[in-house]
Amino acid sequence: MWDEIWENCTLVTLDPAQPTPYGLIADGAIAVREGKITWVGRRADLEDAAGIPRRDAEGYFLTPGFIDCHTHLVYSGSRIDEFEKRQQGMSYAEIAAAGGGILSTVRATRDASEQQLYDSAAARLGKLATGGMTTLEIKSGYGLDLENELKMLRVIRKLDENFPHDIRATFLGAHALPPEYADNRQGYIDLICEQMLPAIAREKLAHAVDGFCENIGFTTGEIRQIFQRAQDLGFALKLHAEQLSHCGGTALAAGLNALSADHLEYVDEAAVKAMAESDMTAVLLPGAFYFLRETKKPPIDLFRKHHVPMAIATDHNPGTSPTLSLPLMMNMAAVLFGLTPEECLRGVTVNAARALGLTDRGILNVGSRADFALWDIDHPAAFACEFGMLQCRRMARDGREVPVHWE
Amino acid sequence: MWDEIWENCTLVTLDPAQPTPYGLIADGAIAVREGKITWVGRRADLEDAAGIPRRDAEGYFLTPGFIDCHTHLVYSGSRIDEFEKRQQGMSYAEIAAAGGGILSTVRATRDASEQQLYDSAAARLGKLATGGMTTLEIKSGYGLDLENELKMLRVIRKLDENFPHDIRATFLGAHALPPEYADNRQGYIDLICEQMLPAIAREKLAHAVDGFCENIGFTTGEIRQIFQRAQDLGFALKLHAEQLSHCGGTALAAGLNALSADHLEYVDEAAVKAMAESDMTAVLLPGAFYFLRETKKPPIDLFRKHHVPMAIATDHNPGTSPTLSLPLMMNMAAVLFGLTPEECLRGVTVNAARALGLTDRGILNVGSRADFALWDIDHPAAFACEFGMLQCRRMARDGREVPVHWE
Repeated sequence: MWDEIWENCTLVTLDPAQPTPYGLIADGAIAVREGKITWVGRRADLEDAAGIPRRDAEGYFLTPGFIDCHTHLVYSGSRIDEFEKRQQGMSYAEIAAAGGGILSTVRATRDASEQQLYDSAAARLGKLATGGMTTLEIKSGYGLDLENELKMLRVIRKLDENFPHDIRATFLGAHALPPEYADNRQGYIDLICEQMLPAIAREKLAHAVDGFCENIGFTTGEIRQIFQRAQDLGFALKLHAEQLSHCGGTALAAGLNALSADHLEYVDEAAVKAMAESDMTAVLLPGAFYFLRETKKPPIDLFRKHHVPMAIATDHNPGTSPTLSLPLMMNMAAVLFGLTPEECLRGVTVNAARALGLTDRGILNVGSRADFALWDIDHPAAFACEFGMLQCRRMARDGREVPVHWE
Repeated sequence: MWDEIWENCTLVTLDPAQPTPYGLIADGAIAVREGKITWVGRRADLEDAAGIPRRDAEGYFLTPGFIDCHTHLVYSGSRIDEFEKRQQGMSYAEIAAAGGGILSTVRATRDASEQQLYDSAAARLGKLATGGMTTLEIKSGYGLDLENELKMLRVIRKLDENFPHDIRATFLGAHALPPEYADNRQGYIDLICEQMLPAIAREKLAHAVDGFCENIGFTTGEIRQIFQRAQDLGFALKLHAEQLSHCGGTALAAGLNALSADHLEYVDEAAVKAMAESDMTAVLLPGAFYFLRETKKPPIDLFRKHHVPMAIATDHNPGTSPTLSLPLMMNMAAVLFGLTPEECLRGVTVNAARALGLTDRGILNVGSRADFALWDIDHPAAFACEFGMLQCRRMARDGREVPVHWE
């Protein structure tokens, strides 16, 4: 019945069917067959397991593989010099006037070859993966024309093929208005709807479509055009919403049954209710909140009150969240937003899966994918409490052990 | 003239004698003899170097070895469960009433054997060292009686003997009032002055003496008694001052020519002037500020105005700063306190050395100790900009390459 049994570990199942906090099972064991979990429980309760190969989990804590459900991992160029100028006292406006900001990343990404983009993203993925992550989402959105958006999405596909991680691609054509459309906003929306979306659907290059709904991004009306077209073509929807102001993106996304709204610092209770009714997930991005020195926090109490699941992601990008540590984001979600340690763990596992429309992972229970990570910690709250030191010790995807470190 | 030359690197010398930001030297080389730097410059300017062994720095950035000048790395027990309770809504008062807080660490540390303390601290030191650190300070202060303070200091000495890092010990008997002296404050001050300090001086177990001057710690009058006795015995002085309120500790420390005042969120301009006049260093501890959700920042502009050098440290401890990443502290000093990237680098090198009374390290110039760290970065501002990913690639102490990873 089983291919393999992992034993000698504390299981952090996060399974609501378990009566313990975190769904914890001390001295646990987990059986795996053909990439799925076939048994979870106390080692002492294992029966009929004679002759099944055993793997020693070395006394570590074993969690579901972590899921980073919002990243911009593929890009070229660096914005470190902008950060330096900002710390030296230059304003955002001055930096933008000097050619900085997101459009500098767009220029560098357009100039980069597919191979260059692949190599730099692979190096970042290698670092990110030490955070115990077995699934991640990567968005396009620095190409902003047909050729370069396709180039980014092909790089994401190649990463998925070459790394053991499951990589989900999201098309983010509506990330910023490209300079060549500065005086023709509708022209760019039309380009997305009439050329980009159909081409991406044809090549099956993305699972979902996203947009940046904000005063400095796209209006709800513009996002609606893109999302309706995307939905017609079968894409799932996600939206950057209410990060810097209340623009109504969340309500729009809820009305279109989007998977998630992300950031959400300025969301109001009506929109949170709409999220609950549409079964949406709130994706919290504390790295960007921290790095941008925002002061208005997402309304955690409203998400709790209306039972909107909260996910946590790195939002890795070169301009506003240059972090590659998902464990650090758990700590920031706890310290900056007030999440409990258990909410933090659900945020990077079962709720992050939900934000990607995935129901087959993020919990250690029978039938789930055998994606997991092993940790040298003493308490499951260590992820939320400690900062700047946590790295995964071992990990498995689809039941097979894969390296933690990639060079 | 030279034992060895490191070449193929960008040197981040931080030497004011260099005309460039960060004292940067592109395509640099550095020569080492008997543990000291004997030459620094452009590789192209190397002369008379035929036959000298060369080491390839692989194109990395080469910085002075980092210095963590304020840690509480030796202790037993964990405070993760307290953090969990706090996140679940329990107040500090309730946690303290339930036996939590610093006294729980004191109990666990008193109960631990020297070997247990050594093993747990060595594991933490191994993680901390991946942040490129070649020198660090460790404080006692969880023993709070003669036997257990000596036990902690002996553990620190043993770490210094067994690790390649240079470890400086600081006696922090005045960290908290031990429970057995709850009704006899002066009795504990007398114990420190009459028994602990002479014993530590006799065994040469500490370089400096520190105290926690705060409403919830010790008064300036109590600290003065301890510091005067310490000074008579030849110890250097450091002080936790103005972290949670303005208590006057900084002015006291300046009056006694202390090396540093640490934390300093509530320091005022008069005390900053006194620091400048006494040649003191301001040690910033952004990890504790962050973890305690403080809102009052140390007055960076006043330190700049009065030319008080700023150091940055982890303050690693289990209750208020459970971090083991000095690079992350550089980012937090930039993001939370507004330091420039160059100030961040000086904060963990030359100014951190200064906070420990050391003048032989922290800059790459002729005569300095050949302690350095190699980094796979593209820009010296990366330390301050990126968060949660930076680890040193290679490091050297006294000119000899030593492992980055310790298990």
